[in-house]
Amino acid sequence: MSNPARSPLLTDLYQLTMLQAYFNEGSDATAVFEFFVRKLPAQRNFLVAAGLDTALDFLENLKFNREELAWLEQSGNFSPAFLAWLAQFRFTGSVHAMPEGRIFFANEPVLRITAPICQAQLVESRIVNILQQQILVASKAARCVLNAPDRVLVDFGMRRAHGAEAAMGTARSSYIAGFAGTATVLAGMRWEIPTFGTMAHSFVQAHGSEMEAFRAFALAQPDNVVLLIDTYDTLRAARMVVALSTELAELGIRIKGVRIDSGDLAGLSRKVREILDQGGCQDIKILLSGNLDEYRLRDILDAGAPVDGFGIGTSLAVSADAPSLDCVYKLQEYAGLARRKKSSGKETWPGRKQVRREFDNNGTWLHDTLCLEHESVAGEALLFAVMHNGQRVESEPLSIIRERCASELSRLPSALAALDTADPGYSVLISPGLVDLARAVDRRFS
Amino acid sequence: MSNPARSPLLTDLYQLTMLQAYFNEGSDATAVFEFFVRKLPAQRNFLVAAGLDTALDFLENLKFNREELAWLEQSGNFSPAFLAWLAQFRFTGSVHAMPEGRIFFANEPVLRITAPICQAQLVESRIVNILQQQILVASKAARCVLNAPDRVLVDFGMRRAHGAEAAMGTARSSYIAGFAGTATVLAGMRWEIPTFGTMAHSFVQAHGSEMEAFRAFALAQPDNVVLLIDTYDTLRAARMVVALSTELAELGIRIKGVRIDSGDLAGLSRKVREILDQGGCQDIKILLSGNLDEYRLRDILDAGAPVDGFGIGTSLAVSADAPSLDCVYKLQEYAGLARRKKSSGKETWPGRKQVRREFDNNGTWLHDTLCLEHESVAGEALLFAVMHNGQRVESEPLSIIRERCASELSRLPSALAALDTADPGYSVLISPGLVDLARAVDRRFS
Repeated sequence: MSNPARSPLLTDLYQLTMLQAYFNEGSDATAVFEFFVRKLPAQRNFLVAAGLDTALDFLENLKFNREELAWLEQSGNFSPAFLAWLAQFRFTGSVHAMPEGRIFFANEPVLRITAPICQAQLVESRIVNILQQQILVASKAARCVLNAPDRVLVDFGMRRAHGAEAAMGTARSSYIAGFAGTATVLAGMRWEIPTFGTMAHSFVQAHGSEMEAFRAFALAQPDNVVLLIDTYDTLRAARMVVALSTELAELGIRIKGVRIDSGDLAGLSRKVREILDQGGCQDIKILLSGNLDEYRLRDILDAGAPVDGFGIGTSLAVSADAPSLDCVYKLQEYAGLARRKKSSGKETWPGRKQVRREFDNNGTWLHDTLCLEHESVAGEALLFAVMHNGQRVESEPLSIIRERCASELSRLPSALAALDTADPGYSVLISPGLVDLARAVDRRFS
Repeated sequence: MSNPARSPLLTDLYQLTMLQAYFNEGSDATAVFEFFVRKLPAQRNFLVAAGLDTALDFLENLKFNREELAWLEQSGNFSPAFLAWLAQFRFTGSVHAMPEGRIFFANEPVLRITAPICQAQLVESRIVNILQQQILVASKAARCVLNAPDRVLVDFGMRRAHGAEAAMGTARSSYIAGFAGTATVLAGMRWEIPTFGTMAHSFVQAHGSEMEAFRAFALAQPDNVVLLIDTYDTLRAARMVVALSTELAELGIRIKGVRIDSGDLAGLSRKVREILDQGGCQDIKILLSGNLDEYRLRDILDAGAPVDGFGIGTSLAVSADAPSLDCVYKLQEYAGLARRKKSSGKETWPGRKQVRREFDNNGTWLHDTLCLEHESVAGEALLFAVMHNGQRVESEPLSIIRERCASELSRLPSALAALDTADPGYSVLISPGLVDLARAVDRRFS
């Protein structure tokens, strides 16, 4: 089985049936589509751009293989001339986008595709599929980072992510947002993201005693001794760790940390810290895991728990309190004319757009303005050209993306950084040019 | 970039560090791990088994490639002897599982792996990653099916699924649960699942008028004319459809359906039905889409809306009201001795288990019993051998799985079939043998 992530058939059937119609009509005028979020989830004051790298990779490599063409042919829904054209299909368009790590808001285009309509249309489903998941995780991770300052946060979400690609996207997106690293080994290999690991309860259970398990692990991983201490009795295990630390010190092995994965995490961490400190193990760090999210991080730290790091899994990987975005990829211009969807409750702003962000003298954000691409509006432009003629302009190192996100988060207005929903939230103004264009489009199509 | 779904490094780092420790200790005794859900989500009265095919495919093909081994080597965390052993690594164990499409409950093992501990341990993260997502979708889809009897349900979820693998899993799992098909083309190609497609708003917008768009689509897809009528004014578009149907009839083209994607769906469908019927278009079906889930399906149909089918996207693909399961893969036996996790609030039942289901004389379910594998307990066994020595016993055709699920859903007690949470829910009894074993394990490890 080939990789579904690479297949142009990982799309909705209607993309292909519409393409057949466009092909028959000889329609190949330039279309402009924009991806944006219509409305922020109730639990999000901002979102973090992510997924662009995967999206551009998809566009650069898009082609139909022989097996796919044969399957389309036998379906009987497509003409031979159209199938011959598909065999030559490549994405040759342009992409403008917000760089990854940037913070954005509702109605702001995060990515714009300008291409012959067949190309721009075909990629819709997969572009949404890629961007939504990575934005969800980056945004959830950013909330964790804001609520656990100076703590080591690690992505433990692989097993509960929705499949392989989501697991990889979770590691990368949470790292962008400021996590220290991930437990997902393949993400370490692919993107040089630092990997973290301790041990599982099964390892302790598979040994005759906890002490035996701890010792075996320390000898096998002398540079990375983090021991899981909640399999049977957390406090008893903490005292074992103290005893073991002396024994291991003689071998030159240092216990770096202990992990607690169940029970009253704040209370246990305090008691374990006490046991470790009284045993002379002030250097051993305490890591917590087990159904954590940004709210529990805040509560645990507010309670003054002596915690050095957190492993965050399920809630991060599935963005549990907001597992989807009201995000769309909409036609904004075709054949030189701006277009607009007017379905009830789903109206869009037409035309090629830019987003401009204004700051006060201290660098604090004032508001954004959604405007026409070349309209003269104050503020820093957020969208840039990232692909020309189907070729990437450049690839950004992950370190740059991560620094950008850290800088964005550091300048976020405090009401937006809070976990509570900011009311009225951040202002995204609509420029006069855009209002005029929308009216003109309505007149033309009414 | 290779397919992450195939990589043994799509795992948590601790699996590999534990493996190094087991390797050093020479531990290769047989381990028995079981995958199960600890607690049903609040909004689910039952779950549907799915994902086994993907899981077995993963186990059958598991091996480390050269690039992966080189990366592990340069990480410095692993010994040369261990790396040489990994290069030969294959999964040679046995798997017992509930067949896909079977309904199950909390604490019931859905899959059991029996293998040398290194093999059984390494695959944990990915097994959970695969099974959770497909179970989530199959279970959500089953609720939709139960609440829209005799309606055509189609998976529209690809774009909002979390990445490529989740999109594929959504198509397959919803089909198992009784959906008529999917919009995801690649799922049609891979599993011969029927594919469905209409048109997008952008197609209407890209044409000079709705009528022009409808005509172009009908000519290009004469066997599959389903028109999207809510881009501008739904009722006006419905009247256009009536006019167009006469025009197309002369060309021998039949309009099969219309789709409404926004607005008051129940109200609009009634008015559209009236327009179509008065225009002599009684045969044209009405399909609804747009933020649908099992609750909205029930409400729309309870309101007597004349609807023939539904496209269900986001809520299905991300299992929006329960985007994760409290599911685990736990060591139940090692080196011939039953084991048990005793962490606070996370106790498990030890040993190799079977699930037996009892029925009354009418075939209605009475209760399940969680028991030891070879314990004499009344009821039909739910777990079967599906892999021996790393080789599948047989592959089940999707049609058989789908029929099984339909049969299961038809016999489900009515309190469980309802959308409201059944209280007390279905009974899963614990056999005397299992209670005794748990006590014995506790004595041994206390």
